[in-house]
This record gives sequence, structure tokens and C-alpha cells, in this order.
Amino acid sequence: MTTLEKELSIFALGGINEIGKNMYVVQYEDDIFVIDCGSKFPDESLLGIDLIIQDISYLQDNKDNVRALIITHGHEDHIGGIPYFLKQLNLPMYATDLTLGLIEIKLKEHGLLRSAEMHLIDDSSTLSFGSVDITFFRTNHSIPDCVGIVFLTPIGAVVHTGDFKFDLTPVNNDPPDIHKMAKIGDNGVLVLLSESTNAERPGFNPSELSVGSHIEEAFRKAKRKVFISTFASNVHRVQQVVDAAQNTGRKLVLLGRSMLNVVKVASELGHLDIPEGMIIEPYEIKKMNPQNVAVLCTGSQGEPLAALSRLASANSRHTEVLPDDTVILASSPIPGNETNVSRIIDQLFRLKANVIYGTEEGMHVSGHARQEELKLMLTLMKPKYFIPIHGEYRMLHKHRELAQSVGVEQENIFIINNGDVVDFDGATARQTRSVKAGRVFVDGLGVGDVGNAVLRDRRLLSEEGMLVILITVNKENGQLLSEPDTISRGFMYKPDAKELIDEVNETAKAAVGNVKGTSGNDATAMRQHIKKAVETLLYERTKRRPMILVYVIEI
Amino acid sequence: MTTLEKELSIFALGGINEIGKNMYVVQYEDDIFVIDCGSKFPDESLLGIDLIIQDISYLQDNKDNVRALIITHGHEDHIGGIPYFLKQLNLPMYATDLTLGLIEIKLKEHGLLRSAEMHLIDDSSTLSFGSVDITFFRTNHSIPDCVGIVFLTPIGAVVHTGDFKFDLTPVNNDPPDIHKMAKIGDNGVLVLLSESTNAERPGFNPSELSVGSHIEEAFRKAKRKVFISTFASNVHRVQQVVDAAQNTGRKLVLLGRSMLNVVKVASELGHLDIPEGMIIEPYEIKKMNPQNVAVLCTGSQGEPLAALSRLASANSRHTEVLPDDTVILASSPIPGNETNVSRIIDQLFRLKANVIYGTEEGMHVSGHARQEELKLMLTLMKPKYFIPIHGEYRMLHKHRELAQSVGVEQENIFIINNGDVVDFDGATARQTRSVKAGRVFVDGLGVGDVGNAVLRDRRLLSEEGMLVILITVNKENGQLLSEPDTISRGFMYKPDAKELIDEVNETAKAAVGNVKGTSGNDATAMRQHIKKAVETLLYERTKRRPMILVYVIEI
Repeated sequence: MTTLEKELSIFALGGINEIGKNMYVVQYEDDIFVIDCGSKFPDESLLGIDLIIQDISYLQDNKDNVRALIITHGHEDHIGGIPYFLKQLNLPMYATDLTLGLIEIKLKEHGLLRSAEMHLIDDSSTLSFGSVDITFFRTNHSIPDCVGIVFLTPIGAVVHTGDFKFDLTPVNNDPPDIHKMAKIGDNGVLVLLSESTNAERPGFNPSELSVGSHIEEAFRKAKRKVFISTFASNVHRVQQVVDAAQNTGRKLVLLGRSMLNVVKVASELGHLDIPEGMIIEPYEIKKMNPQNVAVLCTGSQGEPLAALSRLASANSRHTEVLPDDTVILASSPIPGNETNVSRIIDQLFRLKANVIYGTEEGMHVSGHARQEELKLMLTLMKPKYFIPIHGEYRMLHKHRELAQSVGVEQENIFIINNGDVVDFDGATARQTRSVKAGRVFVDGLGVGDVGNAVLRDRRLLSEEGMLVILITVNKENGQLLSEPDTISRGFMYKPDAKELIDEVNETAKAAVGNVKGTSGNDATAMRQHIKKAVETLLYERTKRRPMILVYVIEI
Repeated sequence: MTTLEKELSIFALGGINEIGKNMYVVQYEDDIFVIDCGSKFPDESLLGIDLIIQDISYLQDNKDNVRALIITHGHEDHIGGIPYFLKQLNLPMYATDLTLGLIEIKLKEHGLLRSAEMHLIDDSSTLSFGSVDITFFRTNHSIPDCVGIVFLTPIGAVVHTGDFKFDLTPVNNDPPDIHKMAKIGDNGVLVLLSESTNAERPGFNPSELSVGSHIEEAFRKAKRKVFISTFASNVHRVQQVVDAAQNTGRKLVLLGRSMLNVVKVASELGHLDIPEGMIIEPYEIKKMNPQNVAVLCTGSQGEPLAALSRLASANSRHTEVLPDDTVILASSPIPGNETNVSRIIDQLFRLKANVIYGTEEGMHVSGHARQEELKLMLTLMKPKYFIPIHGEYRMLHKHRELAQSVGVEQENIFIINNGDVVDFDGATARQTRSVKAGRVFVDGLGVGDVGNAVLRDRRLLSEEGMLVILITVNKENGQLLSEPDTISRGFMYKPDAKELIDEVNETAKAAVGNVKGTSGNDATAMRQHIKKAVETLLYERTKRRPMILVYVIEI
């Protein structure tokens, strides 16, 4: 166990740049609170990795002091790591009802539902842990039921915004609780942690309500079936799709596992209001007039296995996109997904659909506060210290500039990396230490068993392929007992490679002869000698460096 | 040799979607003309591939009739495939002086300078091949010395725009030759091939000149060194950087191989005007007042090995980015490059540089015509038939809509895929046939020896790694002679895998026993049996499916 030097500390264990996803920690003396536990999908450079989660060594090392896992909202980058986390550290969890509902789906898949300890909160809850009280405030985001968190410690209040925007006319008539935020600010905030995703974007987001009218207009104009794709978790947008269908005389088909899951949970909890008989099954489409059908599906980010991608490649077993159907992408591609999304749009145009995409169409607004909203939060909270969170460095940097512009002192702003700690002792704040942090890879059932060495091998294999060379020699005198046997995978087209493989075998054979003369029948030396000779040959002939494995079998 | 059914045909051999890069073919009876020969860099899914070029089977099959390779301008996606092309088909090439200069650099690298036949043209040239005359018209783009091509055939004129925009106040005072274009249109255009890259973007591009004033302003404001990164081939922008340096009392350092190459060629040919003594060597920076230094470098697309990336990771042997230096990215990330560019911006902010990026800053304008410019070209040319070229399907689709909006008949517009042919016989046009086309992969020295099978292996290896299992059995009775020997690469972290590898060996051993009982000592059956048993074991334990190679050695 680490002993604490300071009274209050804030840790980033995820949420910055490429490492894991969101997880911040607030520690007051011996009470440790974890905020959010997200996961991240790997980019293509992380070959074969399924998911990235956080290294929680610090929490494991101090597990007797960790009191709670508090979740701000139900997005993957805030809840996706929970099953892996609970297997290592089974903490009591606190979240609002929709968030808990989405977490439950995950826990069920991992067989953890029974062992998990879940506590329902809402924005009026107060939790007490020793000398720390925890309260919440309602925010808006692209999923309902979001909260910001206030940790009331003896030396001051720590506020964590979660993800937020200020939508003053939200679809569910539950605007962000600005009055409560103002009160929190009036009572004094020692340190604010505020999200930075859109810190580079000027202005103030339009209301989600504006998307609804665009959707309804498109539904009305559509001559035949309408397909609309959006994030399943954007329940307010789903509601607006339901309303548009209702107002234009269309029945609604849901496609995609997460869409079905979220709609079920959100309806049960009263976050979605779907008229009786509105939802129909995919097989019923055929019987309907196309003008009376709308299909709401997943895959707006171009995910290759999701519903929209299957529809675009005419590969869905449920229904098909026909000429003059309308397809709406109610989304904006997350950086890295542009190519996949573009490919789907192309395919849909080839199917002669009327495709509506791109932000100018008004079919999407962001869920993250832009510059004027970030300044509003900073102004409401009036923090002494400020830590911009959730973002890449340039966003944190811009958020720092915004904080300065509304009066936070430059020396009171801390841009921290994952693992960095800011310590507060009532009078001062210092960022001088850090703890172990980093990303842990999930590959299939394995957690953490694929690291950089394995990825290096995978990269080498992926770029140049490999050759396995088998040599059988006499144990006594190192003499070759049969011709070398070489096979390749991922190296070059087999018929083209035949001649070269013959040369490889010749080279290996010659190398055996050479070694025999110099260092006797040492198998290791022979292996290295052969490998080197073949490497040189292949690079000369092809300018490629495949992985080469040499087996020397001594009989 | 293919016999022709029609008098005039237009072929796409590259330029659409992911296949190769730009190459169109115009054939009038037995005279075949090739326009452009680009290459494309592969995306990350094409593991280990260095370059993508076109399948030119059709041209090889008709090689006695192919008259010329005509190049519209010197960008990689129009000239990058030339060395590979000439090795297969050594045609006479026709291009303007800067374009030829850039091609020469390539040919030199490939040792082809001596054998290549190059002809210098300008926008007033006329070439005659039998009954076909070829003329040119001057256009603007993000590289100087661009031309559009007019093929005057007995049944009508074919116009190919190349890449273009309408910059009416270009940096070099050589505006697009609108009068000549109008005349071409007045004389009658049978078919127009016009580029579609920006067909989705409304409006009209700002002049490149507007970038110059932003650059100069940033140079003036910069407190210390300025770094500016842009495409080397954007000679007009390079000129404006030179001018900005001159006007703000800074000397200029050039970093990056392509920057040095292009500046040399463009200066020699008079496309760049650099004052005597303006360019200094990197080692001289240290002796200078930082306020008198500007560094112009490559890498604006985030290319990991280019100058900007090295500077951002403090890895350049030439100079370094220090706090309060200014770094300008005078570019917009090409789709797919966003992540790399963002990473560099983050790194530069961490170095405490003042980073200027993003299109709002006015540091970049596109080189491709936007919607109003495309309509202007269509209006000038008044073609009977229209083939939108260079782009992905959605762009071609939008370009078709634009053509219709200015009066081209819908049935006279052909959206063609690579390999598709449009045949004209004077009275009608038909798109009914296609020829072999596709992409050819270059990997190291190999051209075309890596195909889908090899890539599939590379993908499998890259995602799950591999295991090699070695079994030695008695040739006579199939009895195991020693313990199985298994090694893995790219599968899992070795220490973690030890126990599992033991299990693999046990499983292999058991499988040998089973086979022995059923089908004797058949090595193939044994190999398959072992493979299957190990596959099942590994999937059960890890949910991974690595490539498994089993060697059975019979002694």
C-alpha cells in the first residue's frame, strides 16, 4: 500500500490520448473513488486486439481503500471496461437507472450479474463515505440520464462534469440543472475536472431538437422506404425517429443488436415513448407499402458487421435497400472511421438510394460541449484549480486557454497524462508524481497477455509473411540427412515463389555445410547461420524481410 | 489483339474508388492513347504492400496500337505508376516541362532515364497521330504546369480536364485559359471527362493567393522560428512561403527529400523564384537569431518518416522545435491521414509550440474544382456526353447531378467503373462492355506477386499470430519418437503462454496416438488430425485462431 503525502489527490488512469478510456480517481486521505471505467476500440495498428482497457495496478495495490465506482453515463468509453474491472476488483457501483440498465447488459454477457453490487442514484442523491459526501447534478449529452459529480471533502469540493453539453431545449424536457451548478459554484469549487472533446470547436451546439425536424422533413419527402442509422444509445434521437415515423404514417423496424438492446432497456425505464404497434418485425416489411416503412439501424460509424454495412452490401437477411429508398446517416464519422463510412455511402449510391449524409444536412449535432459551453461550465463552477479531462493533448491545451479566458489562473491549471497525480493540501496544488498507468489489451479471452513483443511479431508477420525451414541432420557429425524443406505463408504468391524457395533450400544446404566446417554440429549456431544466409538471399531478391524460423532436427 | 466494334472508345483503367490510380484511355479505331499513370499508397488493410498500380493487360494485349502516354500534371496519383508501366510497355511520353522534370526524378531512381522517350509539350502544342490530332489547354491546380487534353477525332472531340480548379488570380499570373476552353466548347465537344474530387463541396475555391497573406501574417507574428509544412509539389505555395520569408526577414531551410527535389526542379525550370542567399543549410540555424529563420518541410499529411513527424517527435537530426516556435500545417488531411496528423499536432503542442492548423486558419485551399467550378467547366465545354472521372462513387454521382443541372441529358452521362468502356459511333454512345482492369500490388521488388491469398495469410498471421508444431514419428509404425515441440510467434506473451503450450504439446501427442489407431502412419492425416485438435483447444482456451503449421517428420 502506498502511503499518502497529501490530503486530496486526483489521478488520471485513462481518458487522455490513446491510453485506455475514461477513468479518473479522486482520493481523500484513505478513501478512494473511481469515476467511470471505459473501454476503447483499437485502431488498425493494434493487430488482432479486440479492446483496450486501463491498467488499474494503483487501485489493486490499494484495494482496501477503494470505496466505489461511480459512473457518469452509459457510453462505451465510460462503461465498457466494467466487466474486466469487476473481475479484478469487485467494487460497489453507483449510477443512474439507464446507465445501470446498460451496465447490466454487459454484466449478463460476462456472467457477472449476480456478483456485482449495483446502487441506483439520481441527481438528487447524496452518498456519504467517511468524511466525503458525494452529490450529483443533471447534465445533457447524447444519451439520457447523465450526471456530473461533486465530491465534498473537508478541504474543498471536487467537481467532475462527465461528458456534457448545454441543450436548453432537450428532447426529454429535462434541461441541464444550471441553477444547481450555479449553487455548487457559489459554495466554492476547489477543482473542476471538465471534458475537452470539443474544445477545438467554436460556438455553442444546436439543440438535439433541431435534428428532429430535419429527420421528419426527410421522412415526409421520402418516396419509398426510409433507413436511418444512428448510435443506439442516442435515445433522444431514437425518440425523434419514432416521432417522425409516427407523424408521417410509417411503422418502424429496428435492426442491430445494440439498437434492440437499448430500445428495450430505455423503454422499460421510461426514457423512450413508443406508441403501441409502432414497432414491426423485419419480415413484415414485404407486406407493407414502402411509404409506410422506416428502418432504424446501427452502423452509422461504418462498422463492417453492423446493420447499415450489411444493408449497403446487400447482405442483410432482413430487408434490402432498393432504388429510390432513402438512407439517412444521422451521425458524423468519428476520426478513423471516415473511410469505412465513405465506402458505405458509395455502396448505397450504387444501389440507387437517395443518401443523406454529412453534417450540413442537419441530421446530427454533437453531444459534447463546444467552446462557449465549456466557458459556461467554467463560469458556473468558478473553480480555483482546473484539470481539463477527456481528450487529446491539443484539446486539453485549447481547454486550458478557454479556462484562462474566463479567469482561471494559468498556474492553477494542470494538463495531466495518464498516471499523473495532482495533490492538494488545502493551500497549494502540485503535480509532481505519477503512478503506474497504461493500456491493457484484450484479445479473445486473454486480458494483458498480448503486449508489445507479440504485436511486434504480428506486425512483422503481417507485412512480410514468414518462412519455416526444416533441416534434418545427423546428431553425430552434423551431416544433412535430407533436403531442406521450406514452406512460406503470407510471403509471395506460391507459383511465383517456387524458384525462390528452391534457392532458399540451396542456400540453407550450403549454410549447413559451412557451419559443419567451422563450429561442428552445434544446432544453435547452425540455425543462426542458415537464418542469416536466407535473410540475405531474400532481401537481395525481393527487398522483403519475412520472419524466418529455422528448425534443425538432430537425429 | 481485340478487334474493335466501335469507332471511338473510352476506357477507365484506374481512377475510380480503390483501384490503382488515375489512368484513362482514349481509342479511335486502331490508335490508342493513355492518359496519366498514377500510383496509390495502400491503406492499412493491405498488409505490407508498398504501392498500388493498374492492371494494364488491355494495353499489353494491344501494344502495337498504343501510340502515346500523355500526362496532365506531375502529382503522384498521375505519374507514380510510370516506372512500372514503362518496364512493361515503353511508350513515348508527352508532358509539360515541370511534369517531365518530376517524371525524370522517378525514372532515374528506377534506372530508366536512358530508355524512356520523353517529349516536351506546352498548352499550345498540337500532336498528330493518323486521323487524331491532340491539343491542350492550360488549367490551374495545386501544382504548376497542368493541362487539359483535347482529342480531335473524325467523329468528334474528346476532352479530358486532368485535375483542375479555376484560380483567376493565380500566384504565377497564369490563369486558366478560359477563352481557349470556350473556343473548344464552341467547336463542339462530343464527350467531356472531368474530375470529380470535390464534387461534394459547394461553392468556388478561394484563390491560392489568399493563403499567401495568411502565411505572411503568421510569419510576422511569430516570436521565434517558424516551421511550415506543405506538399512539396505545391510550387505556388512554396513560392508564397519564400515570399513570406523574404518579406519578414527570415532565411529559409528546406527539410525533406521531396521538398529538396521539387524545389530544385521547379527553380531550374523557372517555376520558382528564390532570391540569392535565401536558402540556408540546417546546420546554420544554430548561428541565427530564431526570428530570422523559417523551415519549410514535408510531412503535412502526418507521414511517419517525413520531416514534420521527425520534428514533432524530437527526432530530427537537423533542428528542433523549441517552446514558442510556430508550426504551421498548410494542408488539410487527406481522408485516412487524420489520426497521424492529429498525433503530430499533439506532439507539437507538448513541445510548447504555437501550432496553427485546421482549414479555418486560411492556410490551405484545395486544388480541386468545387461545385460551381465544375459547373463552369461543363458550361464552357457544352459536351453532348459526359463521363465524371477521378473519384469515389458518391462524388461521380454528385458530379452527374451537377452536369444535369447545367443541361447535359441524364441518359448521356456515364458513370463507369474501372475496366468499363463507353463506345461512340458518331450517332450513339453505349456502355455495354468492359475489359480486364484492377489493382496490382507492389511489394519491395515484386510487382503482382502478392495477391489476395497472400494477403489473407498475412491478415490471419497479423490478427492471431501462429504456432509451429513439430512431431517426429517412426516411419514404420507411426510411433512418437520424441516430445512434440511447439513454438509461437505473435500469439501471446511467452511467459503467459508456457502452460498453454504444454497443453498444446499434450494435445498433439494424444492426437498422434488417436491417428495411429485409425489410419496407420499416414503423415497427412496425422497432420490434419493434430491441427484440428490443437485448433479446438486454443479456441476453447483463448477464443483465438492462430495459424497452425504442423510438421510431421518421419524417420
